[in-house]
Amino acid sequence: MKTEGRNAVLELLKTDKEIEKLLMEKGAQGTLGRIFAMARERGIRVQFVEKAALDRESPSGRHQGVIAFAADYRYAELTDIMEHKKNPRGGFVIVCDGIQDVHNLGSILRVAECAGADGVVIPKVGGAQVTEAVLRISEGAAEHIGVARVTNLSRAIEQLQAAGYWVYGLEADGEDIYAQDLTGNIALIVGGEDSGLKRLTREKCDKVISLPMYGKINSLNASIALGAACYEAVRQRR
Amino acid sequence: MKTEGRNAVLELLKTDKEIEKLLMEKGAQGTLGRIFAMARERGIRVQFVEKAALDRESPSGRHQGVIAFAADYRYAELTDIMEHKKNPRGGFVIVCDGIQDVHNLGSILRVAECAGADGVVIPKVGGAQVTEAVLRISEGAAEHIGVARVTNLSRAIEQLQAAGYWVYGLEADGEDIYAQDLTGNIALIVGGEDSGLKRLTREKCDKVISLPMYGKINSLNASIALGAACYEAVRQRR
Repeated sequence: MKTEGRNAVLELLKTDKEIEKLLMEKGAQGTLGRIFAMARERGIRVQFVEKAALDRESPSGRHQGVIAFAADYRYAELTDIMEHKKNPRGGFVIVCDGIQDVHNLGSILRVAECAGADGVVIPKVGGAQVTEAVLRISEGAAEHIGVARVTNLSRAIEQLQAAGYWVYGLEADGEDIYAQDLTGNIALIVGGEDSGLKRLTREKCDKVISLPMYGKINSLNASIALGAACYEAVRQRR
Repeated sequence: MKTEGRNAVLELLKTDKEIEKLLMEKGAQGTLGRIFAMARERGIRVQFVEKAALDRESPSGRHQGVIAFAADYRYAELTDIMEHKKNPRGGFVIVCDGIQDVHNLGSILRVAECAGADGVVIPKVGGAQVTEAVLRISEGAAEHIGVARVTNLSRAIEQLQAAGYWVYGLEADGEDIYAQDLTGNIALIVGGEDSGLKRLTREKCDKVISLPMYGKINSLNASIALGAACYEAVRQRR
């Protein structure tokens, strides 16, 4: 699996993930120089090549002078993510119910990591997976946050509930988010871009909640809605 | 100027903007049928064509069966946006300080509209403009919210301040956003994707504020950070 882009590679290097080698553009300066120094320190093989060689290896064309070759993305187990509920603030899990767009999934991983969530649950089928594009878009957040891939999302929600999580679904027609208590062990579920929460998922939620809307457009982008909801949780949980 | 995609065209039709014609794919059903009915009602010429013809006319390739041809995007004046400060909740203006990415600008217009902001200020030079891509990504929000394009961003900030707006810059190293009073007349400034707030902009701000960060990645995407900040303002202003 390839990770490309300066920030994504920099974050990858900060983890203990096994990295096979780095391809870097000749004449590395600035952030690239820093990446080179970190790779040397960790004993990772660095190959300096012409830009054309990077262009050929680049999955997205936006390599910014560096591509890391590593083992495939290692998913977490749901139980690992749930371990965190021992934290004084309680557990904080994000569940993606069929996010299709890699930009949205990458952004969700990024905001989940920044907001201090313990992990993100995605379905094995019916949604975007953690690909190279998602790694790059997450700016490396995917390397620092656990992503659990589950066969059955309803069962995962039941597991969370059995462990004492309060499960909130984020949807346009729910109860006012600002009237909810988002402290303790919580899971926030964000629905797919077009379809929102699936019927089965919605039925499993302890509560369906919404951000207030004051415009004529009554829908936010999935990652932006989740970001605003995560930060309302952050505000309450400090 | 072309507007494409079902939601973007639907929202365009709800405005009083002059629309020259619609190109639609033959056999329109569902949302496309609704778009057709609205266009008929407004007396707008609709041309049914093969998908290939839409593909040729489409700026992004994602026309979803409909493209509207309209006059160029009509920017608002800063003074129009500031008129809204007469609202009981006070004025609420978003300022983009060099947002480069059309996805971010589109998302910012969308969340600003949903959060009930009065308008968005962008610089004429040094940032993304309201293009066809931005219109589409904003899902039509750009048609409902005023976007003022200014030659000199510092002067625009001064104008806002002279009119009684409290101007907050959003940056990683500012004061805690949750300790701020975001009621009354406020402007929120979001910086460019890579560079953040420009030095001059930062100096003009009444206060620089931040979202708390709990992860190892210490940066949010510009539109996600702005979305979370807008919704904190929403929470306080209700």
